[in-house]
Amino acid sequence: MTKNQSFETVFFLNMKIAIAQNNYKVGDILGNVNKITNSIQKAKEQNVDLVVFSELCICGYPPYDLLNFDSFINACENALKTISKVTENIAVIIGGPTRNPDPKGKALFNSAFLIIEGVIQNTVHKALLPDYDVFDECRYFEPETTLNVIDFKGVKIALTICEDLWNIGNEGLYKVNPMEVLKQQSPDIIINIAASPFDYEQQEKRYGILKANAEKYKTPLVYVNQVGAHTDLIFDGASLVLDSKGEVLKSLKSFEEDFAIVELQKENISKPFEARPKIELIHDALVLGIRDYFRKSGLTKAVLGLSGGIDSALTYVLAVKALGVENVFGLLMPSEFSSAHSIEDALKSVEKVGGTYEIIPIKDAFNSVSETMLPVFKDLPFNLTEENIQARLRALILMAYSNKFGHVLLNTSNKSEAAVGYGTLYGDMCGGLAVLADIYKTEVYELSKFINRNKEIIPYNSIHKAPSAELRPGQKDSDSLPEYAILDQILYRHIELAKSAKEIVSEGFDEITVLKIIRLVYLNEYKRFQAAPVLRVSPKAFGSGRKLPIVACYKQVSSI
Amino acid sequence: MTKNQSFETVFFLNMKIAIAQNNYKVGDILGNVNKITNSIQKAKEQNVDLVVFSELCICGYPPYDLLNFDSFINACENALKTISKVTENIAVIIGGPTRNPDPKGKALFNSAFLIIEGVIQNTVHKALLPDYDVFDECRYFEPETTLNVIDFKGVKIALTICEDLWNIGNEGLYKVNPMEVLKQQSPDIIINIAASPFDYEQQEKRYGILKANAEKYKTPLVYVNQVGAHTDLIFDGASLVLDSKGEVLKSLKSFEEDFAIVELQKENISKPFEARPKIELIHDALVLGIRDYFRKSGLTKAVLGLSGGIDSALTYVLAVKALGVENVFGLLMPSEFSSAHSIEDALKSVEKVGGTYEIIPIKDAFNSVSETMLPVFKDLPFNLTEENIQARLRALILMAYSNKFGHVLLNTSNKSEAAVGYGTLYGDMCGGLAVLADIYKTEVYELSKFINRNKEIIPYNSIHKAPSAELRPGQKDSDSLPEYAILDQILYRHIELAKSAKEIVSEGFDEITVLKIIRLVYLNEYKRFQAAPVLRVSPKAFGSGRKLPIVACYKQVSSI
Repeated sequence: MTKNQSFETVFFLNMKIAIAQNNYKVGDILGNVNKITNSIQKAKEQNVDLVVFSELCICGYPPYDLLNFDSFINACENALKTISKVTENIAVIIGGPTRNPDPKGKALFNSAFLIIEGVIQNTVHKALLPDYDVFDECRYFEPETTLNVIDFKGVKIALTICEDLWNIGNEGLYKVNPMEVLKQQSPDIIINIAASPFDYEQQEKRYGILKANAEKYKTPLVYVNQVGAHTDLIFDGASLVLDSKGEVLKSLKSFEEDFAIVELQKENISKPFEARPKIELIHDALVLGIRDYFRKSGLTKAVLGLSGGIDSALTYVLAVKALGVENVFGLLMPSEFSSAHSIEDALKSVEKVGGTYEIIPIKDAFNSVSETMLPVFKDLPFNLTEENIQARLRALILMAYSNKFGHVLLNTSNKSEAAVGYGTLYGDMCGGLAVLADIYKTEVYELSKFINRNKEIIPYNSIHKAPSAELRPGQKDSDSLPEYAILDQILYRHIELAKSAKEIVSEGFDEITVLKIIRLVYLNEYKRFQAAPVLRVSPKAFGSGRKLPIVACYKQVSSI
Repeated sequence: MTKNQSFETVFFLNMKIAIAQNNYKVGDILGNVNKITNSIQKAKEQNVDLVVFSELCICGYPPYDLLNFDSFINACENALKTISKVTENIAVIIGGPTRNPDPKGKALFNSAFLIIEGVIQNTVHKALLPDYDVFDECRYFEPETTLNVIDFKGVKIALTICEDLWNIGNEGLYKVNPMEVLKQQSPDIIINIAASPFDYEQQEKRYGILKANAEKYKTPLVYVNQVGAHTDLIFDGASLVLDSKGEVLKSLKSFEEDFAIVELQKENISKPFEARPKIELIHDALVLGIRDYFRKSGLTKAVLGLSGGIDSALTYVLAVKALGVENVFGLLMPSEFSSAHSIEDALKSVEKVGGTYEIIPIKDAFNSVSETMLPVFKDLPFNLTEENIQARLRALILMAYSNKFGHVLLNTSNKSEAAVGYGTLYGDMCGGLAVLADIYKTEVYELSKFINRNKEIIPYNSIHKAPSAELRPGQKDSDSLPEYAILDQILYRHIELAKSAKEIVSEGFDEITVLKIIRLVYLNEYKRFQAAPVLRVSPKAFGSGRKLPIVACYKQVSSI
């Protein structure tokens, strides 16, 4: 036994608990029930006493306004009955929405059920409803105010739902701590069913919270999270069983379905929690995010534009990993401003993985559009307009390909560009899913280097050359933006850390640069409003978790 | 005195209350303070005792995640100090955010202040926080739980904030009714400061709620609403003073700034509430919505595509009303499938108002793109792809015009099209603001007829011909969609009334049609996600008030 292992004593022996970490689909109640009953069957075959599922798994999380349809709630209730019927000789803990019988308050609860032998023995409701960042549970649910442990074969279970445990071990947003109430009934174990979306800080943060609960309430803890992605939100699974010291007894897979059985015995050998490196987590999250977007939408094929730059090269490789090389098509669309190395580098991207591609030059179409505009534009000089026309022609070609052959266009914008609006609306901002739009340019490089750690997959030249949109002769990103190393630091402080211009300047950044960048962030809110959904991997992604007005006085806002 | 008039007796005489119904701008704290101090000055000049402003007027409503920035809250606090300094010889009731001193719970309150002679005498916080449809106040604010009337010169004021009064007179969502608590302290008057967005049912609904409060608590009621639009949300003002029977003592303008003084005397002559016709309200709302989007963004000029159809003709006229004919530019972009009458009708639109336009045929550019795609498309037949290419070329031309000359593109899609995805993403779905996307096609006709009530402004032919996208020979909307009269009824039942397919079919609609339409609604969630912001005029608009997943099992969802 190493110094990191510990012995854990619990008073109940030989209770076999199964953890069913499944990948559900929102609204696919029949499919979800199928997954659930399969897991129950599997648990029965292994003589499990209790099998635990994740939060709202009957309908998939997050169901959003589907919850406002009576018929949807009826279907969830019927599903619960179906599940109950297969619970002979086993107990099941599972999550789904229920109606609030009180005509006052929100119409629903976010509930967990203990089902034994076909009977719903207990129903408990979520007490702490997250409503910040991507969470909006106050929109739908009434919080529970009466809390009780539930009894299963003489074992007192503190059955809680996700956020219910999140009021210790962090800054703690809530006035009540459900576990402080439940501890008065001396629970033997905490079971927490969750749908906790991934970001690169989340696994460590989550472990910290769970450990704080196990330690404080001196009970083992079973934590069951959902896995799988739903458009922007990626759920990482990584379910955990902790002993009463907060050490790890069982750790389920990240970004994959998993099924594990734990027997809480006198002597369980635990191990310390191991955090995985940020870039590795982001990598796996993005691959799952792409794969589930396609699979759950019944789609198989993707198309994207390959410019020879790092963003499209990285997106291409991630898509190939997610969908298979046979399902990703690359379009090269050089213009007169494309450098020779751009085409070479783009081709190399494809060749490295043995993919298929086509080269469609845009010169003729660009000239034709220019001629079309001549009666209006007359002899006005080439400017941003013509740069945008190129970007939009490429989008038009990509979408034509998408329409003709049924491929979904992947967007390749990164977070730095998305933040300052360095992209053309209806041009390179197009796509069904934005793969990289939650990672800064500097992280794009890190992730590319991670992918290349053993061999060149993403062309070295795409990594090492100076970034350029190549929409006018000799253009470089650094003509209009600060170096990404500086830009990303400023953006991170403003977006992730919610620091003001003044605070960022006080850290030593150049005032004019900071004000310019923050102003650009706000001025481009209108572009991001129409952007593709962004795979969320950071604690503050563009999308539903960051809600800013479009029409506002940003000149003032950006300077305060 | 007619039978609709009543005498109202209140015990306090000669208290002059001013209602400042102003148009604020989100984030424009300096500008808002300026408006506020001007109104205070105006009130002083007329020997007003108390001047009342609307909810969160210091920062403008809704500020969304600007509230998450410490620096933004500091700026609001400083603004309050500035305002306090000009309150000699007058009292002011005003709304702004304040910090919650308790480290638990949300960081802010949505507050109202009574300021007298430079001193904030009372601060009360909103108790009922709306969190449904477009409202998300639980995201930011902690609800008040301790309620007290405030005293002003011996008058007991029940000072409440918007939703605080919304728990009687309707179905009532909340477990507490703040007025039930406050009535125990025998208030003499209810003052409610609000930021209540417009929809075409809202003025009547709102009056019903206010009347129910005045009647039940037997006090006069002063209701001050914000006016003006912020991107999608349009605030109609229409502030009201009611007597203790709920009759109207004073009714402020809709969709305009206004300032009124009311003296609550022994004998006030009241009048009944008058509801305005729906289409008239929608008309005024849309004009204000366009105007404020431009004005508050520092923009003046709009461009839009004129197809000869009713949607673009109506959008054009509304834009001309909002911005002036000199600021609206029409582009006609005929293709080989455009009928002769389309160009005539589009020209007539422009000529009727004396506007400027240009004709830019897309044939050559379309042919050039077709040739560009030839190596990939080979001899595949003309299909939806080529229809979309035309729509996207038009968007490209419109955006090129927009970029070159600084005009903002207005989107002309209606709600029926937006609902079923009858539109091309990055094509006719482009635009900075969607003017008609919250009114169904049948309402587009009604509104056009209203505009034409005295003379032909919108070409009669645009109103009377069969709707067509003209993207292939002889195309009609009714080739792929049911007649709008049927379509809109089904959509209204599903979107506004949240009825399921089964419920709609049980009302007598054809099952296959209903299932097809509802399925289309869901399948096109991905398109609407990237659509322009929609001016909201209905109780359930596409946008922030309707939040549905993109990746979900819609086949199943649409049939339950």
